[in-house]
Amino acid sequence: MTDPAPLATGFLDRVRSPQDLKRLARAELPAVCAELRAFLLQSVQQTGGHLGSNLGTVELTTALHYVFDFRRDRLVFDVSHQCYPHKVLTGRMGRFGSLRQTDGLCGFTNPHESEWDLFHTGHAGTAISLALGLAMAGAHAEGKPHAVAFVGDASLGAGVAFEGLNHAAASGQNLLVVLNDNEWSISKSVGALARYLSRIRSNRLMQRVGQEVSSLISAVPVIGTKVDRTLGQIGEVVRHAVIPGHIFEELGVTYVGPIDGHDVELVVEHLERARHLEGVVLLHCLTEKGKGHPKAPTHPERVHGVKAAEKPVAKTAASNDRPIAKVPAPHEHGAKPGPAYTKAFADALIRLAERDVRVHGITAAMPSGTGLDAFAERFPSRCHDTGITEQHALAMAAGMAKGGLRPVAAIYSTFLQRGYDQVFQEIALQNLPVVLALDRGGLVGQDGPTHNGVFDIAFLRTLPNLVLGAPRDATDMERMLELGLELKGPLALRFPRDNAPGAERIHRTERREMMPGKAEPLVEGEQVVIWAYGALVQQALEAAERLSRRGVRVGVVDARFAKPLDVELLAQHAQRYRWIVTLEEHQRAGGFGSAVLEALNPLANAAARVRVLAIPDRYVDHKTTREEQLAETGLDADGIERAVKSLLAPSLV
Amino acid sequence: MTDPAPLATGFLDRVRSPQDLKRLARAELPAVCAELRAFLLQSVQQTGGHLGSNLGTVELTTALHYVFDFRRDRLVFDVSHQCYPHKVLTGRMGRFGSLRQTDGLCGFTNPHESEWDLFHTGHAGTAISLALGLAMAGAHAEGKPHAVAFVGDASLGAGVAFEGLNHAAASGQNLLVVLNDNEWSISKSVGALARYLSRIRSNRLMQRVGQEVSSLISAVPVIGTKVDRTLGQIGEVVRHAVIPGHIFEELGVTYVGPIDGHDVELVVEHLERARHLEGVVLLHCLTEKGKGHPKAPTHPERVHGVKAAEKPVAKTAASNDRPIAKVPAPHEHGAKPGPAYTKAFADALIRLAERDVRVHGITAAMPSGTGLDAFAERFPSRCHDTGITEQHALAMAAGMAKGGLRPVAAIYSTFLQRGYDQVFQEIALQNLPVVLALDRGGLVGQDGPTHNGVFDIAFLRTLPNLVLGAPRDATDMERMLELGLELKGPLALRFPRDNAPGAERIHRTERREMMPGKAEPLVEGEQVVIWAYGALVQQALEAAERLSRRGVRVGVVDARFAKPLDVELLAQHAQRYRWIVTLEEHQRAGGFGSAVLEALNPLANAAARVRVLAIPDRYVDHKTTREEQLAETGLDADGIERAVKSLLAPSLV
Repeated sequence: MTDPAPLATGFLDRVRSPQDLKRLARAELPAVCAELRAFLLQSVQQTGGHLGSNLGTVELTTALHYVFDFRRDRLVFDVSHQCYPHKVLTGRMGRFGSLRQTDGLCGFTNPHESEWDLFHTGHAGTAISLALGLAMAGAHAEGKPHAVAFVGDASLGAGVAFEGLNHAAASGQNLLVVLNDNEWSISKSVGALARYLSRIRSNRLMQRVGQEVSSLISAVPVIGTKVDRTLGQIGEVVRHAVIPGHIFEELGVTYVGPIDGHDVELVVEHLERARHLEGVVLLHCLTEKGKGHPKAPTHPERVHGVKAAEKPVAKTAASNDRPIAKVPAPHEHGAKPGPAYTKAFADALIRLAERDVRVHGITAAMPSGTGLDAFAERFPSRCHDTGITEQHALAMAAGMAKGGLRPVAAIYSTFLQRGYDQVFQEIALQNLPVVLALDRGGLVGQDGPTHNGVFDIAFLRTLPNLVLGAPRDATDMERMLELGLELKGPLALRFPRDNAPGAERIHRTERREMMPGKAEPLVEGEQVVIWAYGALVQQALEAAERLSRRGVRVGVVDARFAKPLDVELLAQHAQRYRWIVTLEEHQRAGGFGSAVLEALNPLANAAARVRVLAIPDRYVDHKTTREEQLAETGLDADGIERAVKSLLAPSLV
Repeated sequence: MTDPAPLATGFLDRVRSPQDLKRLARAELPAVCAELRAFLLQSVQQTGGHLGSNLGTVELTTALHYVFDFRRDRLVFDVSHQCYPHKVLTGRMGRFGSLRQTDGLCGFTNPHESEWDLFHTGHAGTAISLALGLAMAGAHAEGKPHAVAFVGDASLGAGVAFEGLNHAAASGQNLLVVLNDNEWSISKSVGALARYLSRIRSNRLMQRVGQEVSSLISAVPVIGTKVDRTLGQIGEVVRHAVIPGHIFEELGVTYVGPIDGHDVELVVEHLERARHLEGVVLLHCLTEKGKGHPKAPTHPERVHGVKAAEKPVAKTAASNDRPIAKVPAPHEHGAKPGPAYTKAFADALIRLAERDVRVHGITAAMPSGTGLDAFAERFPSRCHDTGITEQHALAMAAGMAKGGLRPVAAIYSTFLQRGYDQVFQEIALQNLPVVLALDRGGLVGQDGPTHNGVFDIAFLRTLPNLVLGAPRDATDMERMLELGLELKGPLALRFPRDNAPGAERIHRTERREMMPGKAEPLVEGEQVVIWAYGALVQQALEAAERLSRRGVRVGVVDARFAKPLDVELLAQHAQRYRWIVTLEEHQRAGGFGSAVLEALNPLANAAARVRVLAIPDRYVDHKTTREEQLAETGLDADGIERAVKSLLAPSLV
């Protein structure tokens, strides 16, 4: 890459806030947008971040701030990964060098960062509901504020967005939905609604044809008289037939568009008009993801999420509206050289699927983030991308399992929350053999608290029938997945967004058989034993090694399963050790340590005391790396070492 | 009520299974349906149950079993409360006297009960997804089985149903959706889609008009030539304009209907045709809830869910497709005379809303079940029924709170699972002051495991910022709700489906101030103290009284909050008592007892041991009453007494 040319920022320099923007002439807005786009291109290519989607929203955002006054009007970004232009226009241009880094700008809207940001979001589909709530709250305010939901086309497929639109349209509130419809979606748009939107794009011809027929009909006298009687009644029907968007119109939404979302003056014009309309207005704007990026027309997937300039481009680009599926390269961030857990999972799944035709893969709009794109390449008819619809994906998986298949639903831990009720009713209550592959189980680094997967142990282990496991490395990933595909009930398989250890310490053949409720002791200790869950076994081993160099022999157990626990081994350890240290990348409340406490509590002769190492009861902010988040929460080898020392000689720490 | 006339069951007696049904002539089906309806009317009025919805599905179900062979084809009922005719036709007529009673027929489909039932469900909206999964699983089977989803109109408003339809339409699978559209919905249908469906009903005239115009156009020569060029292109558009259901058609679903769902021969005819169509077919059937019930035409709400004949008719009828909102009458089941917790909540909400105009009520299609119907009567503009859309309801509540209102979202504990991700992202992460009123928190009796609200403590307390409280009686209900409306963050307020104690043991003025993290000690004890959460404080007091009569002084604490816990008092008790018994109507894994273990674990000088009384790690089946379920799980006064005795003198028990 050649050095970037110096940026022209003559207009942007004058825009410290949206008020400054409003002082410009409408004709000056294209120049503002050009500068803004150039700034993002240069800045985000340096820091990494959601480049493509933000290049697509430059004009829409500029127009919104030009027309509305969001000191009193309300702007809600759906997902909010497309909020960079908004951040620039609301006085945060100078902080873009710190984007998504420790103590730097958040990659999403965040009220802690700016009063211009209303919500800290990251999951798709809720902006319409949030904006409707704001509209209701402002309905009786003097000079009623306008509520605007800024929504991407992929988010509209999420059930909650449909629920919101369905209620909003009937609610009598005023609400403007700006539909940001990317011409080049990163992953193929999924579902019938997506096809419908794309049909609207291509139907401009048909609109003209329809209008032609209408005028023909009314011009012909022999029909005139007969039709007069009926045309009044069918007027609305014909209108719907010849204009696009009648799905929305049928729901009572005023549909406007489609318009060119990169013509900022045109967008301003439509926003000016839309703000005076009553009810729910959907302004359908066609945009290009990556607009202005030299590679966008030929490689749209390259520009959705980009990594920082000094690092290689991630092979796994996230799909539309989903977080950047950045998997650390080998050796990055000091990670052990080895495959990403995501890749280990996908490789294992492919190998196992080769032996068993019943194995199907399911993803909810995250084919690359979950590694299922590789599975889809190998088994196209056995891989199902449902779109941003975790609820449906999980219920469908249950149906497939009931029908005799062995579905593996690969969903990030944080997005599994969206389908929690289906995990309960459709899967766990029916005790159906669905494997839930929870990628991003743990702290995720730059995406922050909206994407940390740190609640799943608690919300899953309270459901009867579910087995909860977490592999410590790639070998156990395959063994555990294999087990899951043999179980008669469901298994939740958890792994983090990181690399698995490369040089595995224990050979496959030496390992203890993989079965629910059986942990694997790895290191014998004296007074202290660490029961670690999942990937943190590696941190526990490292801490134990360091301590052993100082003469302190600490035991390490790979717990393997949070449910059922290996109560037998736990009971032995409770007698043999003074301290059992539990270790997990999860909230303390209700997590793995809590499960250990529950298991030990009834034992009459448990002598050991328990120390729970887990995430404290707060949300963990984004940092540049997962490692930094682990360090901050005391879950890295240093933290474990400190904790063990404090147990053995409290005064020495 | 007069004695019922003897039933004519000449046809039904010959139908022991759907195979028998198939042997009848099509012309005999109306007689079968008449007998089936008469049987349900008589039987369900005796036992109680979902009468109205089942009277509405007699013909549809009969026709389905007549046309398809569900030994190999697949039938999925959405919610499945409308499955009684299916149960009768699949050999369970003789067991209807035990409906929804202990060891009796389940009120929903249940694979443990019959091989004709595929799933045990009760939450709405997932049948399309389940059936799609079954279709996928059967896609390569020899003689591909048909997959049928039987869905009520209210369920279609649930986001997951939209997700399912959206994906199914694009999936290339064959799937038949039978839309059971009740002419008389119990609660008003909510949302724009509902309005759309009702417009289809009233649009039959318009269809005829549209067809008339079409034929006119093609008959007129002067247009003929000009239109010829264009008509090909707009043919599809015109077709959509003049037939109903084009929302579905636009999504790629083949829409058929609307047809009379009580004309069994007509339904058979359409099913015969639909089974040969490719892709997703939606057969829109108009039915009448309560069809055949003498009171249905004038009092449809009376016949949705009926109580057993010997008991008074419940005043609170559940809304469409939702469980029977049966609140025990005073003295029923030995409950203490007092208001239902539901009523105590609604009364308190109304009183508090009178003092604060910012208080709004939100329900997701459960206005009467949550008591919000009374609130709506008093404050119609401040009560919002969103339909079966918990996700949207919760996100909207967050928007309202952000806008300065004080929303109270009244949602059953079990349905809150549907909106878990919105509780996380939209409410808890933003730390917005939304009160979540969790009715049916605990065991619910006749509705069984799909409706037991026994996971909420675990899935909520792992989320930072949420306060979790549960009042022990009506007085504390109001005080805790008042507190929730004053907090700066969210509160989850949990109460069971039962009556609150009538004669409250402690006067309002004597009570300890209500604040998060403060428990209220009620009884001093000697060796054992019971920390009870929520309504079970009453059972704890009763057990303590009984034990005190035998000279055993057991302490009782009303924990009030599961989060934050009163760690200070807990620490004192851990030194003073030998045993702390925790008591909760919730699963053991991750619940209130688990929170107590977590809190006590770090205390160096905690001498007391802990005994956790909670629901074991399995799903609790339906029983006639909540009391029986409490007894079965050892959570009634007897069970508590036994547990305490076993602690004090293990050999005596």
